[in-house]
Amino acid sequence: MSSFHEECGVFGVYSRETNDLASMTYYALFALQHRGQESAGIVVNDDGVFTYQKGEGLISEVFSTDNLSSLGKGNIAVGHVRYATTGAKLLQNIQPLIVNHHKGRMALCHNGNLSNSYALRTRYEEQGAIFHTTTDSEVISYTIVQERLSHGSIEKAVSAAMDMIEGAYSLVISSPQKLIAARDPHGFRPLCYGETDDGKIVFASESCALDAVGARLVRDLLPGEIAVVDSGGIRFDTSHCHICPKRFCVFEYIYFARPDSVIDGASVSRCRRMAGRFLAQEHSVDADIVIGVPDSGLEAAIGYAQELGIPYAIGFTKNKYIARTFIAPEQGQRAQGVGIKLNPIRDVVDGKRVVLIDDSIVRGTTCRRIAGLLWNAGAKEIHMRVSAPPFKCPCYYGTDIDSAEVLIANRLSVDDIAKEIGVTSLGYLNIDHVRLLTGEDTGFCTACFDGNYPTVIPSDTAKNRFETKISEKKQV
Amino acid sequence: MSSFHEECGVFGVYSRETNDLASMTYYALFALQHRGQESAGIVVNDDGVFTYQKGEGLISEVFSTDNLSSLGKGNIAVGHVRYATTGAKLLQNIQPLIVNHHKGRMALCHNGNLSNSYALRTRYEEQGAIFHTTTDSEVISYTIVQERLSHGSIEKAVSAAMDMIEGAYSLVISSPQKLIAARDPHGFRPLCYGETDDGKIVFASESCALDAVGARLVRDLLPGEIAVVDSGGIRFDTSHCHICPKRFCVFEYIYFARPDSVIDGASVSRCRRMAGRFLAQEHSVDADIVIGVPDSGLEAAIGYAQELGIPYAIGFTKNKYIARTFIAPEQGQRAQGVGIKLNPIRDVVDGKRVVLIDDSIVRGTTCRRIAGLLWNAGAKEIHMRVSAPPFKCPCYYGTDIDSAEVLIANRLSVDDIAKEIGVTSLGYLNIDHVRLLTGEDTGFCTACFDGNYPTVIPSDTAKNRFETKISEKKQV
Amino acid sequence: MSSFHEECGVFGVYSRETNDLASMTYYALFALQHRGQESAGIVVNDDGVFTYQKGEGLISEVFSTDNLSSLGKGNIAVGHVRYATTGAKLLQNIQPLIVNHHKGRMALCHNGNLSNSYALRTRYEEQGAIFHTTTDSEVISYTIVQERLSHGSIEKAVSAAMDMIEGAYSLVISSPQKLIAARDPHGFRPLCYGETDDGKIVFASESCALDAVGARLVRDLLPGEIAVVDSGGIRFDTSHCHICPKRFCVFEYIYFARPDSVIDGASVSRCRRMAGRFLAQEHSVDADIVIGVPDSGLEAAIGYAQELGIPYAIGFTKNKYIARTFIAPEQGQRAQGVGIKLNPIRDVVDGKRVVLIDDSIVRGTTCRRIAGLLWNAGAKEIHMRVSAPPFKCPCYYGTDIDSAEVLIANRLSVDDIAKEIGVTSLGYLNIDHVRLLTGEDTGFCTACFDGNYPTVIPSDTAKNRFETKISEKKQV
Amino acid sequence: MSSFHEECGVFGVYSRETNDLASMTYYALFALQHRGQESAGIVVNDDGVFTYQKGEGLISEVFSTDNLSSLGKGNIAVGHVRYATTGAKLLQNIQPLIVNHHKGRMALCHNGNLSNSYALRTRYEEQGAIFHTTTDSEVISYTIVQERLSHGSIEKAVSAAMDMIEGAYSLVISSPQKLIAARDPHGFRPLCYGETDDGKIVFASESCALDAVGARLVRDLLPGEIAVVDSGGIRFDTSHCHICPKRFCVFEYIYFARPDSVIDGASVSRCRRMAGRFLAQEHSVDADIVIGVPDSGLEAAIGYAQELGIPYAIGFTKNKYIARTFIAPEQGQRAQGVGIKLNPIRDVVDGKRVVLIDDSIVRGTTCRRIAGLLWNAGAKEIHMRVSAPPFKCPCYYGTDIDSAEVLIANRLSVDDIAKEIGVTSLGYLNIDHVRLLTGEDTGFCTACFDGNYPTVIPSDTAKNRFETKISEKKQV
Repeated sequence: MSSFHEECGVFGVYSRETNDLASMTYYALFALQHRGQESAGIVVNDDGVFTYQKGEGLISEVFSTDNLSSLGKGNIAVGHVRYATTGAKLLQNIQPLIVNHHKGRMALCHNGNLSNSYALRTRYEEQGAIFHTTTDSEVISYTIVQERLSHGSIEKAVSAAMDMIEGAYSLVISSPQKLIAARDPHGFRPLCYGETDDGKIVFASESCALDAVGARLVRDLLPGEIAVVDSGGIRFDTSHCHICPKRFCVFEYIYFARPDSVIDGASVSRCRRMAGRFLAQEHSVDADIVIGVPDSGLEAAIGYAQELGIPYAIGFTKNKYIARTFIAPEQGQRAQGVGIKLNPIRDVVDGKRVVLIDDSIVRGTTCRRIAGLLWNAGAKEIHMRVSAPPFKCPCYYGTDIDSAEVLIANRLSVDDIAKEIGVTSLGYLNIDHVRLLTGEDTGFCTACFDGNYPTVIPSDTAKNRFETKISEKKQV
Repeated sequence: MSSFHEECGVFGVYSRETNDLASMTYYALFALQHRGQESAGIVVNDDGVFTYQKGEGLISEVFSTDNLSSLGKGNIAVGHVRYATTGAKLLQNIQPLIVNHHKGRMALCHNGNLSNSYALRTRYEEQGAIFHTTTDSEVISYTIVQERLSHGSIEKAVSAAMDMIEGAYSLVISSPQKLIAARDPHGFRPLCYGETDDGKIVFASESCALDAVGARLVRDLLPGEIAVVDSGGIRFDTSHCHICPKRFCVFEYIYFARPDSVIDGASVSRCRRMAGRFLAQEHSVDADIVIGVPDSGLEAAIGYAQELGIPYAIGFTKNKYIARTFIAPEQGQRAQGVGIKLNPIRDVVDGKRVVLIDDSIVRGTTCRRIAGLLWNAGAKEIHMRVSAPPFKCPCYYGTDIDSAEVLIANRLSVDDIAKEIGVTSLGYLNIDHVRLLTGEDTGFCTACFDGNYPTVIPSDTAKNRFETKISEKKQV
Repeated sequence: MSSFHEECGVFGVYSRETNDLASMTYYALFALQHRGQESAGIVVNDDGVFTYQKGEGLISEVFSTDNLSSLGKGNIAVGHVRYATTGAKLLQNIQPLIVNHHKGRMALCHNGNLSNSYALRTRYEEQGAIFHTTTDSEVISYTIVQERLSHGSIEKAVSAAMDMIEGAYSLVISSPQKLIAARDPHGFRPLCYGETDDGKIVFASESCALDAVGARLVRDLLPGEIAVVDSGGIRFDTSHCHICPKRFCVFEYIYFARPDSVIDGASVSRCRRMAGRFLAQEHSVDADIVIGVPDSGLEAAIGYAQELGIPYAIGFTKNKYIARTFIAPEQGQRAQGVGIKLNPIRDVVDGKRVVLIDDSIVRGTTCRRIAGLLWNAGAKEIHMRVSAPPFKCPCYYGTDIDSAEVLIANRLSVDDIAKEIGVTSLGYLNIDHVRLLTGEDTGFCTACFDGNYPTVIPSDTAKNRFETKISEKKQV
Repeated sequence: MSSFHEECGVFGVYSRETNDLASMTYYALFALQHRGQESAGIVVNDDGVFTYQKGEGLISEVFSTDNLSSLGKGNIAVGHVRYATTGAKLLQNIQPLIVNHHKGRMALCHNGNLSNSYALRTRYEEQGAIFHTTTDSEVISYTIVQERLSHGSIEKAVSAAMDMIEGAYSLVISSPQKLIAARDPHGFRPLCYGETDDGKIVFASESCALDAVGARLVRDLLPGEIAVVDSGGIRFDTSHCHICPKRFCVFEYIYFARPDSVIDGASVSRCRRMAGRFLAQEHSVDADIVIGVPDSGLEAAIGYAQELGIPYAIGFTKNKYIARTFIAPEQGQRAQGVGIKLNPIRDVVDGKRVVLIDDSIVRGTTCRRIAGLLWNAGAKEIHMRVSAPPFKCPCYYGTDIDSAEVLIANRLSVDDIAKEIGVTSLGYLNIDHVRLLTGEDTGFCTACFDGNYPTVIPSDTAKNRFETKISEKKQV
């Protein structure tokens, strides 16, 4: 129930034989849909000829039987789902980004955010470059193409570009003949690869996409690793590995990723249950029932319940027909109808001391509304437990919180937050427990909790100075 | 995960003052969306002038801010969501059904199926009647209008019509000045009513729709009861009550209804957990983990787990972006990609003795596929438990199973079903336990389990002889 | 450039062999599109099984390759295009109207308006009938089905129904086995039939639809004639012929019909040129150039020019991309941009004495605007000539003018109209010349010019009392 | 009825006050719709903040009240309609092309084709440039931005770019503060400017767009002229004027432009009538009637008829509901239904010696079909007259004929063409008369008639090497 968002999901596949890779990519993107619901695109590369479909909306809206079949067959395909931040819902920003350059075409899919995008872009513009989009991804593309001038191969150009770009990036790139995947040296965002029984190599943001296309998970790319697939098979370039400590985004485990995914060897489902157990150890309470806020709070609730031996229950019915296109026709009515998305099950909570597990508190408004639902349904006590530490600092690595002022944990103490959202007690997961979610200290980025940013903070945090003006204007 | 369907959800509201009832009905239908996803409609009645919007698809597809506001204000509104059975996806079948007659207009919403529809219709046709649709609902409308000729008021006409029509019906009807609700004497389908703080009276198939519009549940209509609302308030006609035993559809509790609904005084969520406890008492097993098939199997799984003290877990991730419009572009690919809708969480089931709870087995194919997913994910044993008895007989009262041959429980013994679907053991809920799901024997229809039909079986079970020809033709 | 409208176009085809009649009907409706642009429908009858597609909009919007092919093959098809008058743009009003009755299905297409529809409907409603639509066409259907009770065949039922219904109707009807066409005894609206080389029989509102499907025009049905086609070929029932004088709508020649159509033996193009010649004889003038208002004024302009030996010219460019969906975003802007639909060609009119031919003047506002365009383009004089007499009385026979007050010719003398619309001189075609447009006095309805209505004027001229309330409400 | 196409229409407006320029641009594009029907776009520039809407389809499809109002107000707007040649119907190719560079944003609209686009692009790519589109327009943009590096203002950059680019271009460009229009030194394509009463300055491909927005035509830009509008008013740079002879595309007069437009001082309507008079002088014939192929042949037909004193008539009814989306469901049916788009008026041609005027013959297939229609309608003789010389050479300056092999005039003599298309006689307009169409020899490009190309022929005539591969692939 978090109100912040992941920005993207990426996918790529290489097939020795020409094949219907459009359908395969469609299924993979469908499994990655939770990582971005605002636009989607697929590029099929048939021996250097790129055909694509892109559009706004869910992939079930963007793709049809007709337009998928119009993509034809190919031996490489890449796909992308996107959540766009303010001001950037522009048609041409939809990925994969396709560019033409002196060596042919290149299609690029990017998950993450650069921290030096503005600096790079300004430098290129001063040399006369033009940019069509307002995305970091175009800066990455431009850097690769520039480096290609002095390096003989696309993979060397990617490697050279990685010396220049900084921040969070998981990339899947198709050149005319090769499929390349790369993960930034901090490993902020996930990127795994797998194989199908008939020898196709696939890359995806999460392993659930591999399941969806019948591929076996081999492993995650290492932070800094580059993988290149062509007719000669798969090769790895680890020259950017271990140049800095791993800083994987812990919210991938807590909230973003699908529970059936396995990231860097750890099951997302297990990590969430572990978060619940840690929470129980830190903030135990005498209660009748443990419930979770759907969907990402459910597994932590089960862990919490099992650690303390309190019964677990399903406390809410979530309306599964809520869609991107759901409209709220009348504001007054809506306030009246608080149970539109989430309705508490009175029989479960009425007269009970309830433990309520959620994955985060951003501004606090959603939490207060949920607590209100439970009080109305007869809860006697509400003990809120959050399966993450207080969220205090903006993220520059691919999520959409960019303003510290809106974060309730910056304004209020834990006790005051509890009062503000109207719960009996409140407990957050301790940051030391967070570090052990996967069972060992694997190296997480904790910047959003403690402000320890692994990179220089971008000088211009706004995505684009022209965009900024637009969004300023729109707000007026 | 059942593959049979409820046919409809109904809603109606009466407001003394002219009001934006379209938005209110929209929110109510949104909460009833699970009862029918193929078409929807809203009629707003402003002092005898009926304005409507209808269309195919989810209500988020049928309604827009524009077309809702074009409905204007009114003092009565009725709405309907529909799941259409084969051959009847005709535009004019979309409800509410609006007819003009000598006393003005009437809009009718119907959930259920008549058992004597064909006989009545034939009789009217022989008198020169024309029918535009192929629905029972038009037969009900025609009967009411015919009876209106010799009865002074709409409510008397409805009462007289109830002497003629037979089978399952929960009705919400708007005449120019009145809102009428009626439930058949067997009470096959639910129908409740409530009030808002500002005195609006609402009727709905399920109480979750009352929650969605901020109305307080008063009670369910009695089987056979007629409620009439007009400027003089609400009145009840109980002349058809208790003329036959109550025969409520038990699958409303087990599968159709939303867990947050309360029907005839019993919480759906609680009944499902109870079904799990009964199942555990009947078919206990030594296992490591209990999981449910989402969404309707989850609560029974929790009940089963708690009864036996086995840990409960979330065993599957369900792709929440599966929409009515989801396409499966290539069949071969799809077979390969078994994890499209439901993906097991390997970490949960790998190496485990798993109890798997589902609400029903119809043909067995879905179950076999789900079991296959678990085996692939490493399950050591799969003990399937079904929170209902074997499904053996067709239903004539508002669900879409009409052929005994397709039901696996008619072909095979329980042991053979277990072999066919590939599970270690299989146990169904006993029918005697079913009768006690709500805590007392409230009178359920068990015809689909034991063939004890509460009414004469319709001579012409096909929905319509012309439709039939069409569907035969389509299958060729 | 008239601002009143025809209401419908009808088409039907019978083929001994099962055939792709959906495509054929699509092409025919496309040729009849000028008779109705608001909705369209096609019914294909395959040995009693009716399949249909209907929708709002142009036929290019309603039909797609997919939905046409979903109609399958058949041996009878009927189709309809419709222009709906105020308040009646209801989905279920879209024709063909399909009804089920004791003998099976019937699909009916109707062009025209009954004058006793309200009386018949009231009588049926008092017997308990229900009506789903607000159209005359449903009253006709009901009458036919009622008569069918005491008559052995559909054609006898149609004949009996024609004794009861009164007014304007050209009908094309499909029963399970037969295709029937009928024209009212006054012959208000056109209806012709033809044959294809391979023996298909087709009926259509205008012969241009026959051209579009490669059929040869045989002749028009006589006023009052019924044609029946089945496996035994075509038969005619003339029992209703010559029971009253022919009263064909003269505006079919002047404005409604396509110039390439031939109606009752007379070329529409020739009649329009004739109207121009008559106008020249009546109202000659010394001028430099003759231009027509596109499209229906062009042929009359050529006739006028040739009669007097004045050069003819194309005086306006009409924007051919004006569509039903064209929006006028800002009123002020629009007033500024008068040349949106029609732009005068300055080179043609600058400094000239211009004769301007149009087919009618309804309210006068359009004419004034057109005259203004010409003055701005430099015209020295504007002599307006109208190829019809002044329009003074409402039409009850299938066009959409129903209020005498709005007609400028009721308020003002010809001289005052000339002043009001701002032209140098104005001349209307004399009614005696109108009678001779086809070269002989064939019997025209002149009610809109002189109030001589061939039938009783409908007591309730409003289309429907419920509709009326709606439209009243909408205007508030 | 020509089967080759113009590629674009451009529009721009500058307003000292912030204004609703989106609506104004919408009306202008609507008037330019004949120049391109495949995509459209509008950019509104509000003090450097660019907002846009683009899409495929007619402008009535691309723009809605909602999306026009979302463009907000501004002081500069530019718009574009586009006809895309094979392989280039890519979403990102839709204009206006918007790019970001070191000085801000730039939106560019282009009508025409460069002849050295490939060479320029290759040079830039070799320096590491990336291109997103496959259009000449992006090459122009890139060149301007490059030149901007060493020139202080956008207008100087445009001027410098004009030293590098070669071929046909009429440009309308918005920089953050300025509106710039430029026409190539040969003046291949039209570009005029005008003023509104309230001081707005507008540029448009044709004067009909000025009429549509209530602007007064001032004059056409000179070949090679650059106009710059900003808060200081309008300024002109004529440094590229008269550096080469004027080579205006004569087909703008004969076929592309709207008859109500005035280009370089000459009325399009008058030029067409003149073409008809010249044809009559060259190829007179004894005939009964003169008809034109709609729409561009009509004025020439009137000129021909008046020169020889033969009656002019309207010979065809053109179905005005033919839309971009019209489908032809069954090929066989279509062959049968030859009269779909164009139906001859039998009464006009039956038994007559007909002169048929068209504007061009490309492959001959359309002409043969039209002649066939006339023969079927009873024509006794058909004398075809073409208001242009034989079309023999491909055009590289903004139309879509790029292959000499398909042109019938390259294969056959005039007599043999007459035989092939099945007409009694055939006459083309002489090239010397073409030169005098406007009344004086204004300097036309006659390359498509005589191969005298005013520029070097592009070495790579294909639009794009990657595109080419795609189109090759598509054809397999």
